[in-house]
Amino acid sequence: MYLDPHSVTRVTSLGAGPIGGGWAAHFLARGYDVTAYIHDESERAAFDAIVDTAWISLETLGLDAGASRARLTVTTDLEMALDGAQFVQESAPERLEIKQTLYARMGELLPENIVIGSSTSGLTMTEIQAGCQTPARCVIGHPFNPPYLLPLVEIVGGKQTDPAAVAWAGAFYEAAGKAPLIMKKEIPGFVATRLQEALWREALHMVAAGEATPEDIDIALINGPAPRMVVQGQCMAFHVACGAGGMATNLDQFGPALKWPWTRLDAPELTQELRDRMVDGCNSIAGDRDFEDMAADRDAKIVAVLNALRQSG
Amino acid sequence: MYLDPHSVTRVTSLGAGPIGGGWAAHFLARGYDVTAYIHDESERAAFDAIVDTAWISLETLGLDAGASRARLTVTTDLEMALDGAQFVQESAPERLEIKQTLYARMGELLPENIVIGSSTSGLTMTEIQAGCQTPARCVIGHPFNPPYLLPLVEIVGGKQTDPAAVAWAGAFYEAAGKAPLIMKKEIPGFVATRLQEALWREALHMVAAGEATPEDIDIALINGPAPRMVVQGQCMAFHVACGAGGMATNLDQFGPALKWPWTRLDAPELTQELRDRMVDGCNSIAGDRDFEDMAADRDAKIVAVLNALRQSG
Repeated sequence: MYLDPHSVTRVTSLGAGPIGGGWAAHFLARGYDVTAYIHDESERAAFDAIVDTAWISLETLGLDAGASRARLTVTTDLEMALDGAQFVQESAPERLEIKQTLYARMGELLPENIVIGSSTSGLTMTEIQAGCQTPARCVIGHPFNPPYLLPLVEIVGGKQTDPAAVAWAGAFYEAAGKAPLIMKKEIPGFVATRLQEALWREALHMVAAGEATPEDIDIALINGPAPRMVVQGQCMAFHVACGAGGMATNLDQFGPALKWPWTRLDAPELTQELRDRMVDGCNSIAGDRDFEDMAADRDAKIVAVLNALRQSG
Repeated sequence: MYLDPHSVTRVTSLGAGPIGGGWAAHFLARGYDVTAYIHDESERAAFDAIVDTAWISLETLGLDAGASRARLTVTTDLEMALDGAQFVQESAPERLEIKQTLYARMGELLPENIVIGSSTSGLTMTEIQAGCQTPARCVIGHPFNPPYLLPLVEIVGGKQTDPAAVAWAGAFYEAAGKAPLIMKKEIPGFVATRLQEALWREALHMVAAGEATPEDIDIALINGPAPRMVVQGQCMAFHVACGAGGMATNLDQFGPALKWPWTRLDAPELTQELRDRMVDGCNSIAGDRDFEDMAADRDAKIVAVLNALRQSG
């Protein structure tokens, strides 16, 4: 029923803000025809400025064959914007009534085999799709800011979403040069923002308690976890740091430390089931690489990142 | 009373594990004479392997003038290891009685104007220095793993520590090529590990609740917050993302979102005082750079990091 995700050549991006403009620039750089819908002609200058800014980075990262800003059309006519769209990325303002009205309208205008991905960070697709006549093809495709640079797109459907539309979105975003993450459940904050939010709240607690300044927080992150986290997520960072014993050693040896007051967030009970999920998950990511291989790979990439940061001033 | 931090040429590193070995390699690469104390000759092969591994990265990052592995001496004699030391980095096992015994002995053997920095992550200096006759020069200098690559060193004294020793450690670590962070208070987990631990506990909750797998967690971090966090800490990331309004806009507009269930960690009350600390802190880091400058700098560095990661395979 849906198109072949690799056959898509024409994408519509709704929204004139940093997210909508960033998505438009991203799809242009990947060689798509892009139609951008902006609500009002007065938003045009700001939209163009976002694409201008994004383009500098996208050119340095490398454009796909045929990519050109000449393939961008901007319109304030929603019907025209949706005409011929093979995928729609919606980045309208984060207000439920605006989104619901828009999805009701799109439900009428857009053939039901065309998938719509919403950039929303704070609403659920179950809420957004409530007034849409063709809700099965509506998914969340949540980017990370700036969307023209950070690869992550978190994908999840609402109660009325067709699981095939979720799978389609994963395949499409991957074809479009993104790093898709299909979520298991519709939860507030998705995965990345939840993790970031836990860190952010701890940071606010520390500033409130006089334990650190905002500058301290940023120095700590930039020079501590971040250069490793760009190479290894927190799970594999602990897995590899514990040598041949990996995550099993981490949890069996340091599990009691989860009760220590190292953050204001209480840890979950470290049940056998949770332990096994963590251990099995890390072993699965590791595949047949041993920890020396992974540590050497980690080090080489951290070195590359540190040298790149130094050279870019 | 203390030496000029820039005059230090001879450093002693205690400990044969990944932290002790990593520190030894770091100081060698920065051009110091390094004496490494290992507890037993049987640890020698593992210690050498750590230095071998670290040296590959350190050479690629660039060695300081005169840096040479020939300037490393390894001994199992503590008295000999401390003789002539101008700074001591202690990375003994994380057991209080071991550290206390060691600091009691160092208190007798080492002139009291020689600063000792402990790599401990889980103990406090107030506890460690309890049995030391000359506790004033004892500080924590906590690195991030791997210590030969990640620049952060968190510095804090105990109840008996001389504040001048803390300041000295900050100046010395900076001279030795590290990014020192002098902490305001002696708190469990310091700054970076607390932030990382909040994120880690949220990740464990998500895996326990079936909301994400370890692989999902790592995909989300690597492709989402991390490539930006290596360039901007969380405070400046939000400050710059909110345009000209900066952190004030972030807190005034999104403050209510702190009550949303985006993590299991409850947020602190967003008082006027906390708001002002965050806003003033970010404005102070920004200095006279406007948000366009900072956003352009962020983008250029993220591009450099992404390209470096791609090129390093």
